[in-house]
Amino acid sequence: MKDKLLYEGKAKQVFTVKDQPELLVLSYKNDATAFNGEKKAEFQGKGRYNNLISAKVFEYLHHHGVSSHFKEALNETEQLVEKTTIIPLEVVVRNVAAGSIVRRTGIEEKTIFSPPLVELFYKKDELGDPLINDEHALLLTDATEADLKQIKDMARQVNEQLQSFFKEINLQLVDFKLEFGRNAQGEIVLSDEVSPDTCRLWDIATGEKMDKDVFREDLGDLVTVYDNILSRLEAKQ
Amino acid sequence: MKDKLLYEGKAKQVFTVKDQPELLVLSYKNDATAFNGEKKAEFQGKGRYNNLISAKVFEYLHHHGVSSHFKEALNETEQLVEKTTIIPLEVVVRNVAAGSIVRRTGIEEKTIFSPPLVELFYKKDELGDPLINDEHALLLTDATEADLKQIKDMARQVNEQLQSFFKEINLQLVDFKLEFGRNAQGEIVLSDEVSPDTCRLWDIATGEKMDKDVFREDLGDLVTVYDNILSRLEAKQ
Repeated sequence: MKDKLLYEGKAKQVFTVKDQPELLVLSYKNDATAFNGEKKAEFQGKGRYNNLISAKVFEYLHHHGVSSHFKEALNETEQLVEKTTIIPLEVVVRNVAAGSIVRRTGIEEKTIFSPPLVELFYKKDELGDPLINDEHALLLTDATEADLKQIKDMARQVNEQLQSFFKEINLQLVDFKLEFGRNAQGEIVLSDEVSPDTCRLWDIATGEKMDKDVFREDLGDLVTVYDNILSRLEAKQ
Repeated sequence: MKDKLLYEGKAKQVFTVKDQPELLVLSYKNDATAFNGEKKAEFQGKGRYNNLISAKVFEYLHHHGVSSHFKEALNETEQLVEKTTIIPLEVVVRNVAAGSIVRRTGIEEKTIFSPPLVELFYKKDELGDPLINDEHALLLTDATEADLKQIKDMARQVNEQLQSFFKEINLQLVDFKLEFGRNAQGEIVLSDEVSPDTCRLWDIATGEKMDKDVFREDLGDLVTVYDNILSRLEAKQ
């Protein structure tokens, strides 16, 4: 099904689809990177977990009215998606203070954000994906004020849905990163992936970290943790 | 007139006023600091220039309808101001790209911002005064959404006025930093100082830098430059 390699990112390869220019195949890699690529490793099976978990997330969001690029999981490591032009923003939603916001603002770790906090980062590796405000986003991307409002509203809606989704498998959704793209019709849809690589997930019973922080902070075996999440998701169905 | 030293900052001392708890005396120091205090020096006469230039700026703004804490210059290095509780925000208005925004976002130096760009930084030395968005500002300060709107509107209004003010003395207002405080009546007024320490000013004829960048970048004698600005301001009256 996949044709030419269009782009290779840190966690995924993107392929064109023969005779279907409106579609792409995402192939999830086993590589893990952190701290803007400064820490790297490969984990056998990681691509499979992220592909299968992300597919379940997108299916759930689809059933709850969130438009995304996702079409279907093709196999263990690949999914078919609608081709979009990515808006170069990383949209972070935070329910609980953890990670960079603690270092940046001095807000105490585990502070509850009510309402949840939305942050925009400029997706630009060579600048380290800096935090930006709305006025910067208007200058640095082709998003309009109405687009930014829609993106933030969608991010908050995704947060509502994902909090329920993960709560069902006994995980607290601490924060997560989303990306949005424009499809051929010019509609803004959720793109990229939603996985333990892009979410902070804490076990509700034990408080244990169940996400890429296990790799960032050398807390244990990443694959065991991702396998645990997929097992919980499969068990609930 | 001044009573007790209330607070000593990097560029000013703040004194109480005997029997007038609603007033303060600001005493401008000769110290120059840059890069969050990492670079330091003392310049004989600098306090006098900043005091006298800042007084002229506040008088001009007052005549053009901008409420500030400023009452009057008391002598060469001191001014009498209304006591305010500072909102811990550094409000930066940019007409032209220079300095940190170029490094942070990759926007090319000298890019014209139209409309001018407004940025909020959290005033917290130990964190390096980080850039924040409006949602952070609501969390980190007691400002409400309406307060933030008022602060940004005032900052834009100050920008309009100061562009004219400096143009009359052949200087381009590239960007500047403002602080706001609440007075005893709870009104938000412009506070702190407006001087070549807090503005980027480029000579319109030659493009020469006429502000604290002379110190930051070791471009020449800071006092000569500040003296030149005060002379231009005195000549226009």
